[in-house]
Amino acid sequence: MKILINRDLLFFNLNNISRALSTKPPMPVLTGIKIEARGNAVYLTASNNEISIQTVIKDKKRLQIEEDGIVVVPGKYFIEIVKKIEAKEIDISTFENNVVKIVADRSLFSLNAYDKDDYPIISFNDSDVAITMDVLNLKQLIKKTTFAASLSESRVILTGISFATEGPKMEVVATDSYRLAKKFMVFEKEYPSIRAIIPSRSLDELHRIMDAPDENVEIHFSPLKVLFKYKNVLFQSRLIDGKYPDTSNLIPTEFHLSVKFNKNELIAAIERASLFTTIDSTNIVKMKVNSDKTVEISSTNNEIGAVKEELVPLECSDPLNFEIAFSAKYFLDALRVFDSNEVSIHFTGEIKPFVITGFYDVNLTQLILPVRIS
Amino acid sequence: MKILINRDLLFFNLNNISRALSTKPPMPVLTGIKIEARGNAVYLTASNNEISIQTVIKDKKRLQIEEDGIVVVPGKYFIEIVKKIEAKEIDISTFENNVVKIVADRSLFSLNAYDKDDYPIISFNDSDVAITMDVLNLKQLIKKTTFAASLSESRVILTGISFATEGPKMEVVATDSYRLAKKFMVFEKEYPSIRAIIPSRSLDELHRIMDAPDENVEIHFSPLKVLFKYKNVLFQSRLIDGKYPDTSNLIPTEFHLSVKFNKNELIAAIERASLFTTIDSTNIVKMKVNSDKTVEISSTNNEIGAVKEELVPLECSDPLNFEIAFSAKYFLDALRVFDSNEVSIHFTGEIKPFVITGFYDVNLTQLILPVRIS
Repeated sequence: MKILINRDLLFFNLNNISRALSTKPPMPVLTGIKIEARGNAVYLTASNNEISIQTVIKDKKRLQIEEDGIVVVPGKYFIEIVKKIEAKEIDISTFENNVVKIVADRSLFSLNAYDKDDYPIISFNDSDVAITMDVLNLKQLIKKTTFAASLSESRVILTGISFATEGPKMEVVATDSYRLAKKFMVFEKEYPSIRAIIPSRSLDELHRIMDAPDENVEIHFSPLKVLFKYKNVLFQSRLIDGKYPDTSNLIPTEFHLSVKFNKNELIAAIERASLFTTIDSTNIVKMKVNSDKTVEISSTNNEIGAVKEELVPLECSDPLNFEIAFSAKYFLDALRVFDSNEVSIHFTGEIKPFVITGFYDVNLTQLILPVRIS
Repeated sequence: MKILINRDLLFFNLNNISRALSTKPPMPVLTGIKIEARGNAVYLTASNNEISIQTVIKDKKRLQIEEDGIVVVPGKYFIEIVKKIEAKEIDISTFENNVVKIVADRSLFSLNAYDKDDYPIISFNDSDVAITMDVLNLKQLIKKTTFAASLSESRVILTGISFATEGPKMEVVATDSYRLAKKFMVFEKEYPSIRAIIPSRSLDELHRIMDAPDENVEIHFSPLKVLFKYKNVLFQSRLIDGKYPDTSNLIPTEFHLSVKFNKNELIAAIERASLFTTIDSTNIVKMKVNSDKTVEISSTNNEIGAVKEELVPLECSDPLNFEIAFSAKYFLDALRVFDSNEVSIHFTGEIKPFVITGFYDVNLTQLILPVRIS
């Protein structure tokens, strides 16, 4: 293999596939990046068995292939080298004994490559039906749900995000059993029924790669994996096996009390009210709605002290005394993904899950389980 | 005590004294900040026994003292509270049972204070003779030397920076015995002889506080401590006891070979040449001066590969073959503190310490010990 490639072009594409490199992969060769020069294109591939990413570089002006070939270079060092090169052009060529030489201006790097036959065969296959949506919508679906997925491997299925289609509607749900985030979107056409659980980590990495909001993404669901096609990137993730719990009955539909707040005021008040709660990591604050329609948010820590925040909500449906306690972290996580300036909290009881909605956040529901207080 | 104070004014001053707070102080009360309202001023004090900082706030417009008094508040939480307050004004008052109430708009914090009698008495005393210099000069002295001090407590004296005056000249030296940084400055008048070793950590914290380059700093040396007076800040550090090693004979004065480089080109070449050396943490690169006056910088790692960088120096005193090996980290640390665009490396032998100087870096010498290579 021998190629001449523009430094910035190579670095940009390396950055994208680096999302699939891990420091402790299941096989040593997966710390490597596979570079394949074939025809008029260079294919860069990285994989950690959970995520596999391939980018295809075709650029007549900034890429020149002098000899086809395949090489698997140590990923971390190859990226470091390209990052530190200031020259415009990089010359990459393979030699006997599996050595790759990288020449840029007056720098010469010799890298020991992996045996290319050890690299697993990774197929990036289309499915029969692909869902198409724009990057902006997909990024919103990801950003507004994945934070609510579980981090604990004790119930693996909850570390994933449920994607389910029904007619023209797709519903995306994440829950760690203490809170739940749900967003749906409606397509202009109907798709066949899909039930898939995508690891939340995979979606977070995909979110980082997609930087062009107006582009389209094709999503190909297969029984064991999902493939996202974005610009010159193929991003593939394994799916989590199993049946996602039915969460449709968890979300209350009738409420006793709804209170509308300025979102930023509410966030600032909760942040202050929870300042002392991190020390015992319970992170619990109390919210009290008074019959005069003022709201108090408070917490107490015997060692350090107490905080009380008073808020005047924008609206309050009923003049009743109501008290509830919850995790400030979960509440803040949920509030922060709303685009609306005003958010409404809907309560059904002091020990019942409550729901957060925002006027401009169409099709988004955030649900939080309260904590029982003595 | 009862005061009304502008939030930004308080936060700025808290940030300055927070440099003396540590999470594991020798006494629990030293995690606290002492607030004293007396006369028309508020004194904020923090100390970790090594560094003590006091700021004096006198501001008729932004500070109102309603009742004198002293309170010691938990430092970390007090700073977090003030940081999170968005109100313009903060009302701080003490109550019975050692409780401090902090009121800002609709927020009310109750903080359990420390017993003020437990807080040690810290005296910030002037010495008979004070050295005065501007902030810019003092920051330069600190930045260009402290990085070369030792981090290991095995020879405590080398964790400090030596300050020594002789007539109108002050010499500042740091060394960890593998490298040495020396800068001196000449005053317009003569000062009495001073020999003091200041912990490098203290100087680094002082460096962070001083943000007004045109201000003057008064430095008061006492037998056991040094006091820096900067704006409304009193910054005091203990001194390290002992005699600093005599380094005057270490620095060679006659050289066999001098090579002048563009500094940024040299830094970039060393950074690339040392990319593979971090893995075995030896961090050793080789520099070879050829008789055709080209320079090669290289390193080899059996596992990963090899790098060779070629440089054409701006000047080279002698056309001789010369090879030397050294720590890339030490070399880069030293190069980065030079202001000059061009730096010169002066060699006396392949296993002798070498010296780096820069045309615009007056009175600055960086010395590095080479590594013996087989």
